[in-house]
Parts: sequence; C-alpha cells; structure tokens
Amino acid sequence: MIAEIISIGDELLIGQIVNTNASWMSQALGKAGVPVRHVVTVGDDGEDIRSALETAMRRSELVLLTGGLGPTHDDITKKVVADFFGSPRLVTDQKVLEHVRAIFARRNFPMSPINEAQALVPEKAQVLWNAAGTAPGLLFEQDGKLCMVMPGVPSEMRHIMSEQVIPLVQQRVTDSVIAHRTIRTAGIAESTLFERLSPIKDVEKFARIAFLPNYASLDLRLSVHAPSRSEAASLIAAAEKIVLDKASEYVFGFDEDTIESVIGRWLTERRETLAIAESCTGGWVSNRITNVAGSSNYFERGIITYSNDAKVEMLGVPEEILREHGAVSEATARAMAEGARRVAKTTYGLSTTGIAGPTGGTPDKPVGLVWVALAAPNKTVTKKFIYTQDRLVNKERFSQAALYLLYSHLKKNA
Amino acid sequence: MIAEIISIGDELLIGQIVNTNASWMSQALGKAGVPVRHVVTVGDDGEDIRSALETAMRRSELVLLTGGLGPTHDDITKKVVADFFGSPRLVTDQKVLEHVRAIFARRNFPMSPINEAQALVPEKAQVLWNAAGTAPGLLFEQDGKLCMVMPGVPSEMRHIMSEQVIPLVQQRVTDSVIAHRTIRTAGIAESTLFERLSPIKDVEKFARIAFLPNYASLDLRLSVHAPSRSEAASLIAAAEKIVLDKASEYVFGFDEDTIESVIGRWLTERRETLAIAESCTGGWVSNRITNVAGSSNYFERGIITYSNDAKVEMLGVPEEILREHGAVSEATARAMAEGARRVAKTTYGLSTTGIAGPTGGTPDKPVGLVWVALAAPNKTVTKKFIYTQDRLVNKERFSQAALYLLYSHLKKNA
Repeated sequence: MIAEIISIGDELLIGQIVNTNASWMSQALGKAGVPVRHVVTVGDDGEDIRSALETAMRRSELVLLTGGLGPTHDDITKKVVADFFGSPRLVTDQKVLEHVRAIFARRNFPMSPINEAQALVPEKAQVLWNAAGTAPGLLFEQDGKLCMVMPGVPSEMRHIMSEQVIPLVQQRVTDSVIAHRTIRTAGIAESTLFERLSPIKDVEKFARIAFLPNYASLDLRLSVHAPSRSEAASLIAAAEKIVLDKASEYVFGFDEDTIESVIGRWLTERRETLAIAESCTGGWVSNRITNVAGSSNYFERGIITYSNDAKVEMLGVPEEILREHGAVSEATARAMAEGARRVAKTTYGLSTTGIAGPTGGTPDKPVGLVWVALAAPNKTVTKKFIYTQDRLVNKERFSQAALYLLYSHLKKNA
Repeated sequence: MIAEIISIGDELLIGQIVNTNASWMSQALGKAGVPVRHVVTVGDDGEDIRSALETAMRRSELVLLTGGLGPTHDDITKKVVADFFGSPRLVTDQKVLEHVRAIFARRNFPMSPINEAQALVPEKAQVLWNAAGTAPGLLFEQDGKLCMVMPGVPSEMRHIMSEQVIPLVQQRVTDSVIAHRTIRTAGIAESTLFERLSPIKDVEKFARIAFLPNYASLDLRLSVHAPSRSEAASLIAAAEKIVLDKASEYVFGFDEDTIESVIGRWLTERRETLAIAESCTGGWVSNRITNVAGSSNYFERGIITYSNDAKVEMLGVPEEILREHGAVSEATARAMAEGARRVAKTTYGLSTTGIAGPTGGTPDKPVGLVWVALAAPNKTVTKKFIYTQDRLVNKERFSQAALYLLYSHLKKNA
C-alpha cells in the first residue's frame, strides 16, 4: 500500500505556516508499514483540490487530505471532496451534533448555526470520530482505495490519525515492513564520512543509506523494506555494524537521541548535576536541557544573566573582569561557569556569553562571536566560535557549542 | 507568473525533517509578486523526480527544485534534471571548482574526488552562484519557462534564493502585485469572531480573508492581487479598517508581531524592566523574550529554579510556603514572581510553576497544571490553567499563559 498526502490551505502556499502535519503523518504511516510517495500542497481552491485528489486516487492506494474543514467561508474541502466522490448531499450526523453541542457547553461559548453545520456529513462518507474538536473526519472508499479527510488543526489531525486512521490502515497492511534507523554523528564532514564508509555498497547490501547534514551534526539514515519485522531488524543490524566498525568515534546517538538527551542519560547514570549560566542564549540552553523528561534529576538551576549586575550578583563574576575584559570574553565565560557551579553546588557549571545580534558587534567582537565554558570538578575548559549574522541561528549554534562542550567532556571522562 | 516548488528527499517523505524550505521560499516568492500554486514533495527516486518535473513544467512558469545536490551517492537530482532538459553531458565549471577548493582549504578539511565532482555542471545550465556552500545552483530555460535547482541545506538555499533567484524573477514580473496582511487576535473563538465580522462579504469586497487558528491565538489573513503596489495597499487598508472597527479589542498585533515583541515594544517605550522566574517552562519564557532583538533594554535576568533549593536561595521563596503548599501552587508562583522582581530590582516579575509531564502528576495536581504570576509595582496577579499530557506542548502553552498575563496587564495599564 502506497500513501499520498494532500495538504490544503493558502497559509501553507504563502509560507505563513510550515507543514508540520505532513511530516507527522508520514512518520505515523511509516511506523504502520505504509510508505508515503508524494506530499502535495494546494490552496483553498476547488479546482486545485479536485485535480490533486484525482491524481492521487489514480496513483496511490491511500489518500489523506488535511485542512479546510473549519466552520468559516474559506473552508471548502468537505464540499469539493463530497462532489468528487459523487455524494453532494449532506446529512446531519446526530452523534456529531451532540458532540459539538457538548463542546460549546463545556467551554461556555455561544453556539451558532455555522457550528451546527459541522455535523453535516456527505451521505456516502463514514465519520472518523474527532474527540479533540468540532469537525469530524471523513472516510470515502472507492475501487478498493481509501480516502480520508481530516481537519488541519494539528492536535485534531493527530487524534484522528492515532485513534481512527492508523488502526484502519493496519488492518489492511499485512505484506511488508518498512524500518529505519538513524545513526547520529558530530565532528566529521559529510564527504569524509562518506569516504570512510566506502565502498558504500558494503552497507547497501543490507540497507539503503542516506547522508543528512544538519547545522551541527550529520545523520546517517538506514532504511529497509522487508517481508517481516525480524528480517528488517537483522538487515538494519548488519548495516549498522559496518557503520560502527568504521566510524563509531563520531557517533553520539541513534534515532530520537539528541545531544541533550545523551547528556541527560549520562548525568543520571553518574548521579552528577548541572547548573547553567546563560547570557546571549537567553534561556535556550536550559530550555533544551529541560525538554528532556526527567531532567529535574540532574538540572539544578539556570541563571540567565542578561545584565552585568546580574552576572555580578547571581554568579559572583568579579567586576574587574567585566571592566577589563568585557562581558563577552573568555574570562567572563569562565567566571560564569565557575560561579554557576559554585552557587548551585553542582558537579558542572556550563556558560555562554556572546553577541547574538543583529546589532551590538564591534570590529574586535563581531556579531556571531561566542565564548562557552564548562566548569568541571578539577578544571574549567573554554572555547570560542564565530558564527553568523542571524540572531536566532546564533542562539541555536551557540547553544549547540555549549552542549557539545559538555558532551565531549562527559564522553572523554566516561 | 505562477510558481511551483518541488522538494526532493526521502527524509521529507518519511517525516524525519519538516519542510521549512518550502514555506521560506513561498514567502520570498510572494514578496516578489509570484504566487506559489503547488508544492510537491518526492523522494530521491529518479522516476518520481522526473514525473513531478514534467507536470510542473507543464502547468507552472517558474519551477524551483531543492535537494539531492550533495556529494554522496543518494544525491541524484543533478543527473535527473540534466537528462530531463536534454543536457546529460556535464562539464567542469572552473570558477566553481576554485570556490570548492577554497572552502576546503579554509576549513582545513581534506578534499576528495567526490568534492571536485560538485563543480560538474550540465552543459545547457547556467550556474546560480552559491557562496554559502559547495554545490552550485542550476538554471535551465525552456519555452520561456524557468527551472532552478538548489541544494536542500537551508542556509545555502536561502543564500541562492536571495542573491540569484529573486533578482532574476523580479526582472520578469511586472504585471501584478500580491499583498498580505495578518491581523493577530487572542481571547476570542473562531466562530464568534467570524460572526462578529459578518457579513464577511463586506470585507471581501476589498480583500480575501482567511481564519487561521493557532494554539493560543487566532490570525486573520487579508490577501489581495492588484495591478500596483499602491492599489494593493489601499485595498488592504480598507479591509483592515472594517475588521478593526468590529473587533479591535481582540487584536494584539499585525504580521510579524508576537506577544513577546509587543511586550518588548511597550516595555521599551515605558522604560520598564522585567525579570523572569521559571520552573516547569525551563527557560522557554526567557528564550521567547530574548528572541526579540533589543530585549537587553528591558530584560534584566531570568532565573530557572528547577530545584526547591534554588527557589529558596535565588528568589527568597519561604520554605514554609514550599512545605505547606508545594512547589506547584498559587502561593509559590506569587512568591517566585515577587522574588524575581525584588532581587532584580525590575518593574515586573513574571513566574511559572507547574507540571510539564509526562510524569510527576498527582490526583490533586495533574500533569498539565500550571500557575503563572505577575508581580507589578502595586499588586501581584495569578492565574491557573490545566493543559495537556505532552511535555513540549505544555511548555509552549505555559509560556504563552505567562506572557499573555503580562501582555494583558500592560495593555490595561497603557
């Protein structure tokens, strides 16, 4: 079974929002053994939706549409799809109507005729129950192929996918399994790693391999299509072994692992603790650390010292260091990391101080400059980097530099 | 001129990465007056790329492809596109080759034959210079239509778009202008706002209007297609006036405005300052505040007190409050906000304390519970919310609740 996703909405075509729905749906379908071969985005335009649907129903066995099921005038998907499947007559679904009424009653919002209209369903469609919102999902079947329509609100789409679509799809998929494994590396260039793994056909005897560079890391994705789960697993294992034999020193994790989740695992195992002192990253390093469930076991506190006063008062950075070297300097980064470790009584103190931009740079200290420091029990290490002109890219890269400094230290001292 | 985007990469189809390139490109094209009508995603598969390119060259005047131009074996786009345009012979572009060599020399990385191959260009293609990386962009022209191919690495694609593609496109677009205006609202349901603006045709006499609900706000997007910039502007202005006349009390900003940028503007104007004390949000509130350029003018410090010790030591939260009410309580939220304001000597102190999950909930204090508090010069206000089971969604919603509390206070006391 091959799937196709049609994402509907002018807001996608003008770039106002990013299509996170399509990637979430692709992942969920992949886990269920159904590969997605096309993702097509069209606007709230009847003819474009119809044409995309026609192409999709011709070349794919499962077609999922999202978007344009809301209550307002710009939501036209239901009508277009109903017409396409020769079911223009809409009938009220009493169970959906009661559900919509109950939602409005609970929220204490006034209910209006356009909300009642959400319970209207094309005669030939089956309802895909949406407990998370007012617009029901719809299922059409034609020539043994399935077409399912869902709202574009991410939480509602995810709910219908998990509760309705995936179980329905799984009933029909019995023939094959798709499996992926991502090997995450850092500290090596794409072409160097490629050569290290050459000849690549040694790996590809077992699994397809793709190179996926990111800002500060490089992922290798292994993919297999096999008749059973166990065969898929052994193909992946064989390919993975070759990669690890040739390049294990650059591998920091697998699949969902992140630098921060690996750090978290190690700190938990070693019963060590962490305090963070941030300036230019403004909370982004601490936020990444606390995105990991269970981080309260090792993350004691974060101190975002945007002002010099805060650096002196909360971290004990000596005023003469700020005066002589400036807030963005190796000496300040060191004093911040050591100060965080001291006041929080943690195993490690990690700090960032730099110029995120877009303004505030000087010839000596340009926008993009950052100093990061790690205070460990027996020593403090510092590093300097110069990145870009873009504030948000800098916050990301600065935080990655700080976390990588901690990661490298933990790895070396394992 | 109508544009179409073809995004290439298995990593997109399996949902491993989100297609942020397509939204960025759509925005850039829209500003240049070129609407995107289709975005199509296909995998690293020669036949699927060729078929998508054929459809696109038939129905669109400008076709932009990204992805699959890297140095490794899974990058096949250059070959497929060259064949499609009848230009299979590749020739070395000396200028590109020197550029690739210079990049490797600067990075002090060893250079290999697969890197040299990046300078091979189809005979009929024109190079779109890529100063940001090693893979050149390519331009093909056929029957008056343009096809441009770029790497999928976001920073390289953006560079080629800004420096090469947009200027080329602008030379050809003289016939019309597209304009959008987003009106950002909060605190009102989609259907209620729809009715308030009814009859919607009063607005649509001037501009198309779309309703775009987000997690914690609701955007209205006005769109026009007009012969000139000035006509577009006056149509937008007329539509905007109708919306503001009917619903201005729910409008917090326009276009790129966010709650945090509006807060920043007001604090700067009033010369007021802010300190933040976070628990469950782990730095996310401070990070949002510091994403705004110029936030160092009003953001003094952020204190992430993940442990009880940190709450007592850094914010002066009384130990008996923690003992009697617990860390997640109205009393603790209040003491945190007041403590942040006191130690940082700022106009405002803003705090969050809650249970982000996935574990740590109790019957009395479930996962998703948050207390937020704002300490202002004459009073402290608190609010309680219960959101979801998802850690990252909770961090987002908790932070939005805290920022909205500050926003509302600043608005009321303008």
